[in-house]
Amino acid sequence: MTMQDARTREIGWHKSYLTGSRPDLRVPVRQVHLTSGQDVTLYDTSGPYTDPSLETDVRRGLAPVREDWITGRGDTEEYPGRPVRPEDDGLKSASPGAGLRNLDAVFPGRPRLPRRGLPGQPVTQLAYARRGEITAEMEYVALREDVPPEVVRDEIAAGRAVLPANVNHPEIEPMIIGKRFLVKVNANIGNSAVTSSIEEEVDKMTWATRWGADTVMDLSTGRNIHTTREWVLRNSPVPIGTVPLYQALEKVDGRAEQLSWEVYKDTVIEQAEQGVDYMTVHAGVLLRYVPLTARRKTGIVSRGGSIMAAWCLAHHRENFLYENFEELCDILAAYDVTYSLGDGLRPGSVADANDEAQFAELRTLGELNTIAKRHHVQTMIEGPGHVPMHKIKENIDLQQEICEEAPFYTLGPLTTDIAPGYDHITSGIGAAMIAWWGTAMLCYVTPKEHLGLPDRDDVKTGVITYKIAAHAADLAKGHPGAQAWDDALSDARFEFRWEDQFNLALDPDTARSFHDETLPAEPAKTAHFCSMCGPKFCSMKISHDIRRTHGGADGGTGGDADGEAAGVTEPDIAAGMAQKSREFAAAGNRVYLPLAD
Amino acid sequence: MTMQDARTREIGWHKSYLTGSRPDLRVPVRQVHLTSGQDVTLYDTSGPYTDPSLETDVRRGLAPVREDWITGRGDTEEYPGRPVRPEDDGLKSASPGAGLRNLDAVFPGRPRLPRRGLPGQPVTQLAYARRGEITAEMEYVALREDVPPEVVRDEIAAGRAVLPANVNHPEIEPMIIGKRFLVKVNANIGNSAVTSSIEEEVDKMTWATRWGADTVMDLSTGRNIHTTREWVLRNSPVPIGTVPLYQALEKVDGRAEQLSWEVYKDTVIEQAEQGVDYMTVHAGVLLRYVPLTARRKTGIVSRGGSIMAAWCLAHHRENFLYENFEELCDILAAYDVTYSLGDGLRPGSVADANDEAQFAELRTLGELNTIAKRHHVQTMIEGPGHVPMHKIKENIDLQQEICEEAPFYTLGPLTTDIAPGYDHITSGIGAAMIAWWGTAMLCYVTPKEHLGLPDRDDVKTGVITYKIAAHAADLAKGHPGAQAWDDALSDARFEFRWEDQFNLALDPDTARSFHDETLPAEPAKTAHFCSMCGPKFCSMKISHDIRRTHGGADGGTGGDADGEAAGVTEPDIAAGMAQKSREFAAAGNRVYLPLAD
Repeated sequence: MTMQDARTREIGWHKSYLTGSRPDLRVPVRQVHLTSGQDVTLYDTSGPYTDPSLETDVRRGLAPVREDWITGRGDTEEYPGRPVRPEDDGLKSASPGAGLRNLDAVFPGRPRLPRRGLPGQPVTQLAYARRGEITAEMEYVALREDVPPEVVRDEIAAGRAVLPANVNHPEIEPMIIGKRFLVKVNANIGNSAVTSSIEEEVDKMTWATRWGADTVMDLSTGRNIHTTREWVLRNSPVPIGTVPLYQALEKVDGRAEQLSWEVYKDTVIEQAEQGVDYMTVHAGVLLRYVPLTARRKTGIVSRGGSIMAAWCLAHHRENFLYENFEELCDILAAYDVTYSLGDGLRPGSVADANDEAQFAELRTLGELNTIAKRHHVQTMIEGPGHVPMHKIKENIDLQQEICEEAPFYTLGPLTTDIAPGYDHITSGIGAAMIAWWGTAMLCYVTPKEHLGLPDRDDVKTGVITYKIAAHAADLAKGHPGAQAWDDALSDARFEFRWEDQFNLALDPDTARSFHDETLPAEPAKTAHFCSMCGPKFCSMKISHDIRRTHGGADGGTGGDADGEAAGVTEPDIAAGMAQKSREFAAAGNRVYLPLAD
Repeated sequence: MTMQDARTREIGWHKSYLTGSRPDLRVPVRQVHLTSGQDVTLYDTSGPYTDPSLETDVRRGLAPVREDWITGRGDTEEYPGRPVRPEDDGLKSASPGAGLRNLDAVFPGRPRLPRRGLPGQPVTQLAYARRGEITAEMEYVALREDVPPEVVRDEIAAGRAVLPANVNHPEIEPMIIGKRFLVKVNANIGNSAVTSSIEEEVDKMTWATRWGADTVMDLSTGRNIHTTREWVLRNSPVPIGTVPLYQALEKVDGRAEQLSWEVYKDTVIEQAEQGVDYMTVHAGVLLRYVPLTARRKTGIVSRGGSIMAAWCLAHHRENFLYENFEELCDILAAYDVTYSLGDGLRPGSVADANDEAQFAELRTLGELNTIAKRHHVQTMIEGPGHVPMHKIKENIDLQQEICEEAPFYTLGPLTTDIAPGYDHITSGIGAAMIAWWGTAMLCYVTPKEHLGLPDRDDVKTGVITYKIAAHAADLAKGHPGAQAWDDALSDARFEFRWEDQFNLALDPDTARSFHDETLPAEPAKTAHFCSMCGPKFCSMKISHDIRRTHGGADGGTGGDADGEAAGVTEPDIAAGMAQKSREFAAAGNRVYLPLAD
């Protein structure tokens, strides 16, 4: 199990906390101890599971660290809440066997009444920020991102960033999504009608955050959907997103035309009371856009988009989410659920990228973004999908313009369709580029995309690939602190500090095991050469020899040689050259120093 | 063994040939047969090994398909050649055990005298192109790239493309490297002092080309270096590159200061006679540039660069490759060995990217490029390395300007240093971008980079990752034919033709096995839903239903609905809407048609 794994892994690093203005404001960091004596502080998404001083129990859930902040604001109330029904788990009351199974699975943790804003009170971080308040959550993310809290507040107030934090999800460690901050990564989990179990999904969530997922979307469908979500929420240190339409569809037995605003609204309230932090809402799929997809190579590929399109056509009425959008805003504002306005008409192949259907919907999302903001609802905008490299920049530029710089949240995009089995890579390329250009959060893609359901290994590979894309973008954007991580690893590499390289790596386990395959002996980890080249061909070793005799960062015999040699422009053998040659011989004599050196 | 693998894999595709103006000009292609009845023709690098009608024997080597073209030109002569010495394999004559081992390993294939240009005759494709000739090799690549042969000739004549084809490597299937053509991928193989064997290296070569490597560099060091190269060359359908400095260093027992022009020249001739098609030459590492690296974060990371830097400092003389560059040009011109001007001072960390040392060397490479061209030697320029995304474009732009658009051949670049174990991905991102902007060939990076020696799986992962990068760039550049491959796969995906998706995939084996993990049953491969979503949530299925009732590519009840629905701008329920709703119900009634549909 994940918790156990995490606790036995603490070689070379430990969990530490930055403390804010109040004792219960403790921001976790991963403190890496280098053999050089320095410490490197890294952002940490892994939650209490990697803190050996904390007891965690998946059957009880995580401690509600935000509870005092929420109640302290005095603008929410507890209330009985909507009763949980068998249909919430996709069960018929006439199906006793299934009902029993559900009863067994029910989350055993402490009951807590749901909470919502006092009547007419938007309790969103956006509302607070607009009033000039710096909440505990904002201070938390400011410490986490190493920026002044005023910057956090102002970015949220301007709608350029969101801080997804449902008042019913007090367990989260707050995080922020916006282009001014570190690029974030979302991992999707979720059982499906075909396979998977509740325990697997909770494990995938903790596993994904262990490797760096900043948020997790529970895309479960089928049975036990309510109960699975409860387990995930109560154990999640990161914000949880959902697509309420999936559960709504289950409630009408998978018949899209039977969907209604009432069923949808009921589902949104159900999920908001549980604590879902952001919801994908496909309100931009308008009836008149659907025919624009008819001649596409791959039609509509968003599940939510295709469901709403089918509903629109079945009734020949406008999308009920679009028609009831203002009411939906008021519901979300009462819990501080963040909108993730879904791109139901995103392209499903590079051939369909940037077409009329896609951009028509984007313009509608811009309109909805304005409405949501009027209701003080935090909002981000979802983006593609499948886009060849030369068409990526247009996506982010247009989105930023149309949606007043609301955070863009993209799925990849995949830059080619020819590599099923490797779509984490086809999309990691596009993800890095679009994030560099301003996308705030990247939804990961696993190697199983288009082929099957991701297992544990796939989840890890997807998260690591997307952390690479996100960090490459942070570097390219010049995010303060991003370069320091690379520098620490490069220094360790140049100085043959293998253990430091492993501990600084995004995936220490893989780095260490790859090294051990070629040179398994323990002394090899302190050897002054890499296994690729062997001792004679090691360029870094030669570089050290050069420094030793010709100055440079690690000292040596003469820093003076630097400027002098730089002044040499003629290749002739001068007297000074002969002297330098003798100095080189005298200082090290051999180009390759002994390994113990 | 690879050959066996390849021959049992021919489900859904077969090897085919395009024929040129002469019967011995046969360009291999991979012909994929779709269940829809169409055929898709793909570029094929796998050589005779995937042609079941051909007998191959690694101990005899491949058929010399180019031999008649070379001799037919009448500008070369056979000659006795340089005698092979024990030192060529890193053996001392005083070491009988090692000598025996070498004797056992010696390549048993038919002896062939080396060949070179008649005195004073450059026999390079560049010289021919400048004279206006279209050689058989040029016609071959024109067919392969689906462009007029004149384009091939003109690009080579302008120095914007190279066609690496040593007169002593008649076994190759010619290919071209230039920004006007498909982006190419090189795979590195090579034993090292630490591990590996001859058989392993030959197997890695055929394995790499099986997955799409366009050229292979043999970077062997240590023992049996000459013999390993002979086996690789005689069995390689793709151009082989080397770094002659590695072998030269072995000849002086690894002591860089003992290197000399004479030892290097001897090695170049030895390798040219064997048939090496292109050579990395570190002639741009000038004495005065070495101190520029002293304060870098990671010094000099190119093996060849660090060796030449050490030599320069040991003697305090100018790089002997730079000083003897014109003589080297004449040697290469006599065999048509292509220069790959090495970037010995490339950055080894994102911190060192685009610095003074790197660009100083690039300017010298520009100077050498001009000299090489004067001697009719085909030339490409090597590039970094480690470069954050925002500094990548400057590299290709500067190189193209300084080197008169000579093909750029880059290693990655890695866009971040924090992910050892995943550097195929950190660099695949940079590779795709720099190729889009004009890089002609990408040197692959495997997951083991910086950690250990790649095994068979790593070679495959590296090649596939780089084929993705190359193809994503082809798409973004609008290369004719690139989009057709994606379209064929997207069509297959939308139409649930699973077998076609697998057969069109860059890696059919992995795509098929990932699919089978979730839905192993044979009927699942024709099922009209994906395993990710299950039948109820399949967006593509819903899209088909929409098309069926609302027109579009796959027919249905009414193409007329298209324009009509597009005209709907008011969300009210009109009489026409009710009518459309009834039509939808009448046509399919259920949104989800039976699976057998």
